[in-house]
Amino acid sequence: MSRAKARAVERSITAGSDFLHLAIADAPPGGRADWLAGRLRQAIADGRVPVGGRLPATRVLAADLGVSRGVVTEAYQRLTEEGHVAGRGRAGTVVVAAPAAVVTSAPTPAAAPVPAALFPPAPGSDIFDAVRTAPAKIDLTPGVPDLAAFPRAEWLRAERTVLRHLVAADFGYGDPCGTPALRRAVAAWLARSRGIVVDPAEVIIVAGVSQALGLLAQALGLAGIDRVAVEDPGSLGVRQHLNNWRVETPPIAVDEAGLRVDELAASGFPAVMLTPAHQFPTGVVLNGDRRRQLVDWARAGGLIIEDDYDAEHRYDRPPVPALRGLLPEQVCYTGSVSKLLAPALRVGWLLVPSRHRAAVVAAKRNADLGNAALPQLVLAELMTSGALERHLRLLRRRHIRRRDTMIEAVRRHLPGATVHGAAAGLHLVITLDDALVDTDLAAAALARGVKVQPLSWHCQRPYRPGLVLGYAANTASTLEEGIATIAAALGDLR
Amino acid sequence: MSRAKARAVERSITAGSDFLHLAIADAPPGGRADWLAGRLRQAIADGRVPVGGRLPATRVLAADLGVSRGVVTEAYQRLTEEGHVAGRGRAGTVVVAAPAAVVTSAPTPAAAPVPAALFPPAPGSDIFDAVRTAPAKIDLTPGVPDLAAFPRAEWLRAERTVLRHLVAADFGYGDPCGTPALRRAVAAWLARSRGIVVDPAEVIIVAGVSQALGLLAQALGLAGIDRVAVEDPGSLGVRQHLNNWRVETPPIAVDEAGLRVDELAASGFPAVMLTPAHQFPTGVVLNGDRRRQLVDWARAGGLIIEDDYDAEHRYDRPPVPALRGLLPEQVCYTGSVSKLLAPALRVGWLLVPSRHRAAVVAAKRNADLGNAALPQLVLAELMTSGALERHLRLLRRRHIRRRDTMIEAVRRHLPGATVHGAAAGLHLVITLDDALVDTDLAAAALARGVKVQPLSWHCQRPYRPGLVLGYAANTASTLEEGIATIAAALGDLR
Repeated sequence: MSRAKARAVERSITAGSDFLHLAIADAPPGGRADWLAGRLRQAIADGRVPVGGRLPATRVLAADLGVSRGVVTEAYQRLTEEGHVAGRGRAGTVVVAAPAAVVTSAPTPAAAPVPAALFPPAPGSDIFDAVRTAPAKIDLTPGVPDLAAFPRAEWLRAERTVLRHLVAADFGYGDPCGTPALRRAVAAWLARSRGIVVDPAEVIIVAGVSQALGLLAQALGLAGIDRVAVEDPGSLGVRQHLNNWRVETPPIAVDEAGLRVDELAASGFPAVMLTPAHQFPTGVVLNGDRRRQLVDWARAGGLIIEDDYDAEHRYDRPPVPALRGLLPEQVCYTGSVSKLLAPALRVGWLLVPSRHRAAVVAAKRNADLGNAALPQLVLAELMTSGALERHLRLLRRRHIRRRDTMIEAVRRHLPGATVHGAAAGLHLVITLDDALVDTDLAAAALARGVKVQPLSWHCQRPYRPGLVLGYAANTASTLEEGIATIAAALGDLR
Repeated sequence: MSRAKARAVERSITAGSDFLHLAIADAPPGGRADWLAGRLRQAIADGRVPVGGRLPATRVLAADLGVSRGVVTEAYQRLTEEGHVAGRGRAGTVVVAAPAAVVTSAPTPAAAPVPAALFPPAPGSDIFDAVRTAPAKIDLTPGVPDLAAFPRAEWLRAERTVLRHLVAADFGYGDPCGTPALRRAVAAWLARSRGIVVDPAEVIIVAGVSQALGLLAQALGLAGIDRVAVEDPGSLGVRQHLNNWRVETPPIAVDEAGLRVDELAASGFPAVMLTPAHQFPTGVVLNGDRRRQLVDWARAGGLIIEDDYDAEHRYDRPPVPALRGLLPEQVCYTGSVSKLLAPALRVGWLLVPSRHRAAVVAAKRNADLGNAALPQLVLAELMTSGALERHLRLLRRRHIRRRDTMIEAVRRHLPGATVHGAAAGLHLVITLDDALVDTDLAAAALARGVKVQPLSWHCQRPYRPGLVLGYAANTASTLEEGIATIAAALGDLR
């Protein structure tokens, strides 16, 4: 410690200001007032200068520290503005309020949840977060493409192009429905790959299908529709999203031809949400007869919500065109890049009949003022340059190999299982011996390090026990090991 | 036309299948079934083959076209799956449903709205979209920093770094509260620049302050709070967002010392939303006395929503620390990068008292499953590398010059105007002669090509007429011309 500093400390003690261990040399050049205010604030927070206590006179403290009086005055001024101290005339500067003591909670290592607790028969709305964060060696939960194949170089190249051509206003607030470039690119993509012809001005860019469902639920609620029939088996996540927005989701059975439209028609429900191109989770494609029945039902006034979540991943032939192409005024259509590129991009699209459009746009504005612009523009560049289609072809080839590996592994390790839905998508369903409780099997598999979803989560009414197994994001050896581990877990239950 | 094709057309006519102008040479190699299905679909949509009509037998059409019968069978199969045709045994393949005729609405050029219609005294919730899209030569609406300064090269560099280090799982579904990297970076940023010490696990990444308000409104609604007092004058956008989520926003006056806390305390309202560091729109800083009164009010049970929208842009001294630093359990705190970098990024943050945390997280999950990951990670990189702080220093220097230019231009061209709120921020308020209707002035300015916001939009109770003028995003010469034009518009009204 220099003699000057030692003297300063000593004199501050002498002057009754021994609350600070001041070392003015620590203050950055030109930032002494700032530094002093910070030390004083800390001393007030600590209780070293209690509420009601008095700060040293500016003249005294300045002399103590060997700084100009202006520095101290400025620091006191700042504390005054913050409401910590107040000038009391002759009584000097008094502490009137302390900042909250700063408490940093120690990092709490997340206790690994017990596998059985993760697979309750009636999962809550945070279940997917809970499963996602559970540690596991192998993750066979469905819903993602091969994420390792994300086209990083193409993305960066497209971003460079976008950043080069943006004008300043593109960084400002934009249309809540999305950037014109992406809306045009999506319209062209839908025409090319899904048989939908739509004016780009009708495309609403959203933060994934889950947001699309929330926006629709709000708009339909305003139109008096608070029940949307759903497929059973059908996506648990979809049901949870609709329920969270106060929409009821009564079940309609799915059989080997798709949704039982006769059951829907008999129910009197005003709307239905379905996955016609590749039913989740069973993998069934809505067949021609059922499509016709459904179209008739919609023409008679029913509203269809078409979740086209992974239609691009059909392996044996081109996918069935979207229902939206047939009935634009009776079909709300939604899709995303979650299964094409990555869920982490949070970009999707939504088309709605014109009568619901204003309410959906208002809901999107309310939600977030529109998606972020840069990723939209990068995606538009990938769509129009052909890079996304090349990526999709690469994914398809890779996914087919992985699907075949998984089917082969199931045949070898789980000979009693039946495989469903192998013609398309990113996952398989296997059904098992009726005596099994599939949540128990999922828990047993997780206890052995393999994460899967029990089929019963996606069923509202009793159905066969089974598992939903994603294959797209795993290598052949991982798939092989994963299925072998499930077989061992099945053994644990016996 | 080749002889083979001519023969094919002739034979198809002979066989009653003259509905197609087929040129098999147009079909891509290996894609003949696809091509044929497309042509047939088009013919059905056109009505060239009406519902009830019969397609040629596969054998006949295959011979007509000179293709294998499998190609035709495959095309028919596809139409069957789509529900357009059905096999009727001996009766052959019959058209049972037509695709909707494809109607592309002609691009409707948006008619430029009449300026007066854009500035109603009681604007609707789409007013900011309407104003944004109105054509104008000069845009002085407030709320954006210098967008031309967006650090494109740094952003791209940071994105390259991020893409290099991501693991595959980072492209999957993530924590709805945001990526750990950005939550850590925001916690560090808030500690450094706003006097807030917070555990990164408490930071919730949101799509801007507007989303934060929606999430809070939902959570507070569940806690029985459906009225949030707001500053008057105060942001119209904030009020609209809260109202859209069914929260009432009764006004509390703002004077030269900030919010009238005595009025708040007398009102009995359970919560208040305010902008203590730099009041919007007046630019007043909540002074020390008022801060103390407000803290007392909150300690007695009141809830504060602190909108720290542009606190980093203080020019004369460091900004007053956030209220959140004093009262973590009584203050919901929100901020964003909209005024630091660009609104188009749609990234902000939200801190809430622990008792509201679960409801806010659930609302965020419901809204969109969390912000997109890539921009979060790029932003985290810019925050931790120091690039964002460098950018902010550059912005501050530039903004000060622009503020001075605008003030000087107002003095010269609008000598009767009073300037408010020049010590910080991205905008000024000018108030004018009491006889004026400021929406008329805004309309007259727009008619002359200059976009501004009338002060009355941001007032619930009668206040002085005025304008809110953004200076940050415009060059000196534009600011000069803009103010001169406003003066001319003022002349138009006399």
